[in-house]
Amino acid sequence: MKLNEIGEDAVVESITRDLRFDERVEIGPGDDCAVVRFGGGLQLLKTDCVVEGIHFLADTPAQAVGWKALCRAISDIAAMGGDPLDAMITVAVSPDRPLAWLTDLYIGLNRAAARYGVNLVGGETSRSPGPTFIAVALTGKVDKERLVTRAGGMLGDRLYVTGELGGSIGGKHLGFEPRLAETRWLTANFPPHAMMDLSDGLASDLPRLAKASGTGFEIEFSALPKTAGCSVEQALADGEDYELLFAISENVGPKLEKDWQHAFPELALTCIGRLTETKPEIHPHGYDHFR
Amino acid sequence: MKLNEIGEDAVVESITRDLRFDERVEIGPGDDCAVVRFGGGLQLLKTDCVVEGIHFLADTPAQAVGWKALCRAISDIAAMGGDPLDAMITVAVSPDRPLAWLTDLYIGLNRAAARYGVNLVGGETSRSPGPTFIAVALTGKVDKERLVTRAGGMLGDRLYVTGELGGSIGGKHLGFEPRLAETRWLTANFPPHAMMDLSDGLASDLPRLAKASGTGFEIEFSALPKTAGCSVEQALADGEDYELLFAISENVGPKLEKDWQHAFPELALTCIGRLTETKPEIHPHGYDHFR
Repeated sequence: MKLNEIGEDAVVESITRDLRFDERVEIGPGDDCAVVRFGGGLQLLKTDCVVEGIHFLADTPAQAVGWKALCRAISDIAAMGGDPLDAMITVAVSPDRPLAWLTDLYIGLNRAAARYGVNLVGGETSRSPGPTFIAVALTGKVDKERLVTRAGGMLGDRLYVTGELGGSIGGKHLGFEPRLAETRWLTANFPPHAMMDLSDGLASDLPRLAKASGTGFEIEFSALPKTAGCSVEQALADGEDYELLFAISENVGPKLEKDWQHAFPELALTCIGRLTETKPEIHPHGYDHFR
Repeated sequence: MKLNEIGEDAVVESITRDLRFDERVEIGPGDDCAVVRFGGGLQLLKTDCVVEGIHFLADTPAQAVGWKALCRAISDIAAMGGDPLDAMITVAVSPDRPLAWLTDLYIGLNRAAARYGVNLVGGETSRSPGPTFIAVALTGKVDKERLVTRAGGMLGDRLYVTGELGGSIGGKHLGFEPRLAETRWLTANFPPHAMMDLSDGLASDLPRLAKASGTGFEIEFSALPKTAGCSVEQALADGEDYELLFAISENVGPKLEKDWQHAFPELALTCIGRLTETKPEIHPHGYDHFR
């Protein structure tokens, strides 16, 4: 079987089934980040990549590529309730590229690092015989009381998303802001039961959160916060929204919505459905890395 | 200027000049690993990659690729005097590859993880429009008293290498064992002043150690431990030896050599020169990623 006949979730399940862990590992693969014990605290670990021809194009400005590469990983650290700490950057690049491309990439990386308090502590730069490839590994820390996984959702929880969904390819995917201030505020004031960032599209990501929580879900399609000019299908399936999806007790909903408006007047917060026992098939699919 | 006109060290220097750090960072880019403070201890952070067509071939057995990818990073953690902890794997792979290739890769990764006590805590698998690319990010811990950098070498120190140099492409590069037991023993019994692992070849790596230590060096070419069938040039420049290079006080040399033979009877330890004030040009160069 080839990878494109199988699909991403099945591939990941197949390769992560027998991985080696010891007792330091609190949460292994399958959530936005891994969680390990280190030095008396909890460390978050995330790796991610952007590939030329997939996540950016040969003529995408390198500074934007750098920003995107680091912010994708920051978005995952935020979605677990954590703070990003130290990043390591691996770049495989054609020897034909000008040095200016690489320095521009690092300007973008550095700008995101400064904005979100990340240290760029290490890197590896190799030759690529093909497209440029950038991997970002990012550590973070999280207080035990603030850790939010995908798995804590409960039947009846309201489902919220931040911002607007769909159409990211129009530009947002290169310049988005990871929702770090928002997750800090949420975990301090309205701790979600379950949370994740929306990277592959709601149609792919929500079923993952529900599955991890052992529930089904219902979406109120008419309530979806669509980016201007986008259809419901695009809001569900375009992917690369880098917004938050979280599940929270129904009874805190009204106060959450009111307080959110004061805290983040520029960013929409929308109740898009609930965790239920129903397990609907939703189409179209969000982004699958192998299909 | 294109990358292949500049050379690896100049490229790295150019992109790491203005990186953003805070006071948690003890050692940034430029050594085998970065060192950061975390939870009251010191954490080592390393990223590395292997690229199809550069570090392995399309028909290299995937299990060997997995072993190599993780062991390269373990070798760097060892060279700082640390113990490896948690690894994150990023793979960009053609959708045409069979699933068996990816599961074999993970068998090799998992075997190395089990052998050296590493947790494979996370991964990202993406599509590649070209060659397969594997990045490994690895954390480690190190006691402050056991931390060894490239920078502590002193004038008059003896230079030692483990094992034999050259000819790694004949097979060793796929099946080498990172020198973790050896660095644990060294840092406990004969703490080196400076240490690194030999990945690009002695001709490239030794000048880096000497430069970081603010010294020059002399090599006794006739003493170089050459792999059977290899020339001095190959021992200097082939690269991918994954042996240790370290600098240590001249006066501990005799006892070190004697005790080493008891501790590691199967692994040669060879004095190959000294740190001096001389700064020779040595040719041929070791491996440069952009030339």
